[in-house]
Amino acid sequence: MSKLGVVIVAAGEGKRMDSDTPKQFMYLAGKPVVQWSIEAFESVGAEIVVVLPEEYKDFNVEPHRSCVGGATRFASVKNGLAALDSDCDFIAVHDGVRPLVSKKLILSTLECAQRYTSGVPSLVVTDSLRRMTSHTGSSRAEDRTMFRTVQTPQIFRADILRKSYESAKNDTFTDDASVIASVGYRVAMTRGERRNIKITEPVDLRIAEVLMKEAPGPASQRHQ
Amino acid sequence: MSKLGVVIVAAGEGKRMDSDTPKQFMYLAGKPVVQWSIEAFESVGAEIVVVLPEEYKDFNVEPHRSCVGGATRFASVKNGLAALDSDCDFIAVHDGVRPLVSKKLILSTLECAQRYTSGVPSLVVTDSLRRMTSHTGSSRAEDRTMFRTVQTPQIFRADILRKSYESAKNDTFTDDASVIASVGYRVAMTRGERRNIKITEPVDLRIAEVLMKEAPGPASQRHQ
Repeated sequence: MSKLGVVIVAAGEGKRMDSDTPKQFMYLAGKPVVQWSIEAFESVGAEIVVVLPEEYKDFNVEPHRSCVGGATRFASVKNGLAALDSDCDFIAVHDGVRPLVSKKLILSTLECAQRYTSGVPSLVVTDSLRRMTSHTGSSRAEDRTMFRTVQTPQIFRADILRKSYESAKNDTFTDDASVIASVGYRVAMTRGERRNIKITEPVDLRIAEVLMKEAPGPASQRHQ
Repeated sequence: MSKLGVVIVAAGEGKRMDSDTPKQFMYLAGKPVVQWSIEAFESVGAEIVVVLPEEYKDFNVEPHRSCVGGATRFASVKNGLAALDSDCDFIAVHDGVRPLVSKKLILSTLECAQRYTSGVPSLVVTDSLRRMTSHTGSSRAEDRTMFRTVQTPQIFRADILRKSYESAKNDTFTDDASVIASVGYRVAMTRGERRNIKITEPVDLRIAEVLMKEAPGPASQRHQ
């Protein structure tokens, strides 16, 4: 069986939450948000590294490892990769603010990565989409059926992810699929789960509680 | 003061909900979903036409008017426009499955339309975005900061909306901004509200209930 490692990125400072506590450390159904992700990856036996902000560097993730993040998401993931054992065959990178990641999603994304070297969960876009075409507010309609929003965990063959983080030419990427694509590797998308939301605002904590009570089933997913 | 009319599009058959009841007629906090939109537009004194599916054509919208929808969204809006009084200065088109539309959003969108002839509420995209580049699954990263997802109500100067619906060359549009843009009119975007969600799956009803209890405030909105 191949060995899976995961870098859980929880280094953000969460300025959007109107609170001194970064969102990944706020409480959701009795646990810090990031703890839910840790437990999801425990359930699949992954080796876990949690990337923490400097001011939370003592947050207890035992028996797992933690490291401190950098100035950008790219720098934080890079620190996480350095802290992860070198014998992982596949590495997942997961946003610590997506507490509803399911065991099922981790396994289906891993399966995609085993088959195609990368696995990136994605969702169809259900709202009409426009592209800004100038700084004065002009825009044009885009065909939403051609777009996917992507989630995490994104899972990659370990050598590809590590090489990409060494070779990438800039550090402004918003996800890891973009990092590997920027150096020429293939991004394979797989079906995400709509319930796998990102906690970005206070109300998302309440929404996450509702979603936790819903049985995950076909109706809570969207086909790619 | 200018007169506002609204076409509330509630003609969909809601196949995605695993239910015989279309989502706009499901109950949310004690009322059919579409009723919430009707009351929001009542609160700003709009003239209201509700577009219904054939099998729900007797749904009671009194004291307002209703008409029956067509085979496409475009055809349904067109029927709604025909049923609306000809003396409206501005016309809003609103999805009947967005029950959380606020009086504030209607008024700010109307203000945009009064100033720029159209008002289209939009949100920034918070997930990474990819564009499919082939039917075999290839994709490329897109700069999410250049994109907006658009909501309803979309509000237009009445003559522009009516003319656009007469001149449009096809009927596959997913929103009204695309209709007016297709015949050369300007689309002006304004700030949407994140809580103004579309009910597309059963869990959205539960999420809507949570959002209804939240005080709408700056933190529940996203800047354009």
